[in-house]
Amino acid sequence: MAVYTDVTDEDLEAFLWAYELGEVLSFHGIAEGVENSNFLLKTDRGSYILTLYEKRVAREDLPFFLGLMEHLAVRGIRCPTPIHARDGTALRELKGRPAAIVTFLEGLWPRRVMPEHCAELGTALAELHLAGADFQMARKNALTIDGWRPLLDASATRAHEVKPGLAQALGRELAHLEANWPSALPRGVIHADLFPDNVFFRGDRLSGLIDFYFACIDYLVYDVAVCLNAWCFETDGAFNVTKARLLVANYRKRRQLSTEEVEALPLLARGAALRFLLTRLYDWLNQPAGALVKPKNPLEYVQKLRFHQGVKGPGAYGIQ
Amino acid sequence: MAVYTDVTDEDLEAFLWAYELGEVLSFHGIAEGVENSNFLLKTDRGSYILTLYEKRVAREDLPFFLGLMEHLAVRGIRCPTPIHARDGTALRELKGRPAAIVTFLEGLWPRRVMPEHCAELGTALAELHLAGADFQMARKNALTIDGWRPLLDASATRAHEVKPGLAQALGRELAHLEANWPSALPRGVIHADLFPDNVFFRGDRLSGLIDFYFACIDYLVYDVAVCLNAWCFETDGAFNVTKARLLVANYRKRRQLSTEEVEALPLLARGAALRFLLTRLYDWLNQPAGALVKPKNPLEYVQKLRFHQGVKGPGAYGIQ
Repeated sequence: MAVYTDVTDEDLEAFLWAYELGEVLSFHGIAEGVENSNFLLKTDRGSYILTLYEKRVAREDLPFFLGLMEHLAVRGIRCPTPIHARDGTALRELKGRPAAIVTFLEGLWPRRVMPEHCAELGTALAELHLAGADFQMARKNALTIDGWRPLLDASATRAHEVKPGLAQALGRELAHLEANWPSALPRGVIHADLFPDNVFFRGDRLSGLIDFYFACIDYLVYDVAVCLNAWCFETDGAFNVTKARLLVANYRKRRQLSTEEVEALPLLARGAALRFLLTRLYDWLNQPAGALVKPKNPLEYVQKLRFHQGVKGPGAYGIQ
Repeated sequence: MAVYTDVTDEDLEAFLWAYELGEVLSFHGIAEGVENSNFLLKTDRGSYILTLYEKRVAREDLPFFLGLMEHLAVRGIRCPTPIHARDGTALRELKGRPAAIVTFLEGLWPRRVMPEHCAELGTALAELHLAGADFQMARKNALTIDGWRPLLDASATRAHEVKPGLAQALGRELAHLEANWPSALPRGVIHADLFPDNVFFRGDRLSGLIDFYFACIDYLVYDVAVCLNAWCFETDGAFNVTKARLLVANYRKRRQLSTEEVEALPLLARGAALRFLLTRLYDWLNQPAGALVKPKNPLEYVQKLRFHQGVKGPGAYGIQ
């Protein structure tokens, strides 16, 4: 669930005074998302999402996120676009928190991923990368290779509570990744968190991408590696190479992958698995009392990491 | 928050197969309500609420609740009305739980109650009582006078954790109510839980009543007593007689109160205060581990009960 901050009808009315959104018809907190408080706002002009950014999102990053969504939406990417107040600003404040209103996207996210979803995803991911090419703002990826060591250190002493020997295994994996991480792949805007619950579909057709609050500048193909982890494993842990092949093949129809990018994919897939393993491990070991959101089990990514460690080359992902 | 049961896109699709609601455009869990799981469902035909009834709602009561909403909506009461599936049924099953789809109501519930809200409420409450007069189904009020003794017994040994001497004070109050509870006031359908979060407004105008899951057959004026408790106290605990006067006066414009009803109001207001005090006390002392909803503090109703105990007659509620 994701309403950490209550917004009263009077708070809302005062906030909307700055906008030209017409009369409020309804306003409901949404039980989705983890980081922020989200409300579905319906007015006589349309449907919107009001987001209050809670403390896990750094205030200084918000102009990048909002600017990116607007940049992408203008270029035809189906993503939420920020609504500007009368004074031109999109990032405002409500209940002492940064707040913004974005357009509402129709569609459902797929709880059970089918191969067609992965095909659509590949196309949309490439289009996102192409549309982001001329975005002028920059944000470093705080959760890539040089951010993982501090994360591992923060969990190392208690990692055995999740699995005996886990800290040692992750330390070896991280050393391998640090020694071999590529240094010169094509960079650009990546989503960096494109899990199924951030991708909406109407029927089999992708209808929107949401939640750009991990977006940053990094290797474009790292986004593919994240999606291989998030979309191509079955619930029993088996890797579905059909889904991977469709994802990558459709990506490559829109944006060509260089030989270096293809060769790097297995290592980047290990890195992406480690990234989600480390943040889940940290959240698992540091559950705040009375938390509203149950953390995700990190063991799922131990299994995924092991798969990628056993991969001999990009062929394992269905890539010729 | 109120999504206890996850509904996947596939669950939803299979469920909606039985209805004629068109294509699903969006589906979001709503972070409101306490008892059930609620989802906002938008299709190309309109907006709806899908509710999964969780264990606190007795399955055998659901035909009463759904039948009542339909009965009232047909008679012009602005309340959710159940949508029938192609086979005519409104009460169906989803994820092993009873489930129903009802129409979506526009409006916001007032976090800060103003006198105009109470005036509108009085009118709507009387109209609800009149429209319910020819409803043929019956449901006993499980939370009236004869249900309070078992509730008090269940909390008595630990009530001092909330306030020293509380069990004794409540025992005396209950004995007084049992000895004096009226036996022959006009009965009919009452909402029984018409708190501000169950009443929607557009601007100053009431636009809808929701959450009929405590509705039952009881003294009509007991519903007025519930509203006096729920709407006419300020956050500092002071009783606002202007709000009470507007509530009752507007009620009486639509439905006359007999002398017996007016005379009984102070005692019924004590009873209504005790009813919410006892359920809140029980919930406070019996918080399940990992609960998603923080229980409401019972002490608010200790203060309200004390006010009603000091009342000399109906004039204290602004009634001439």
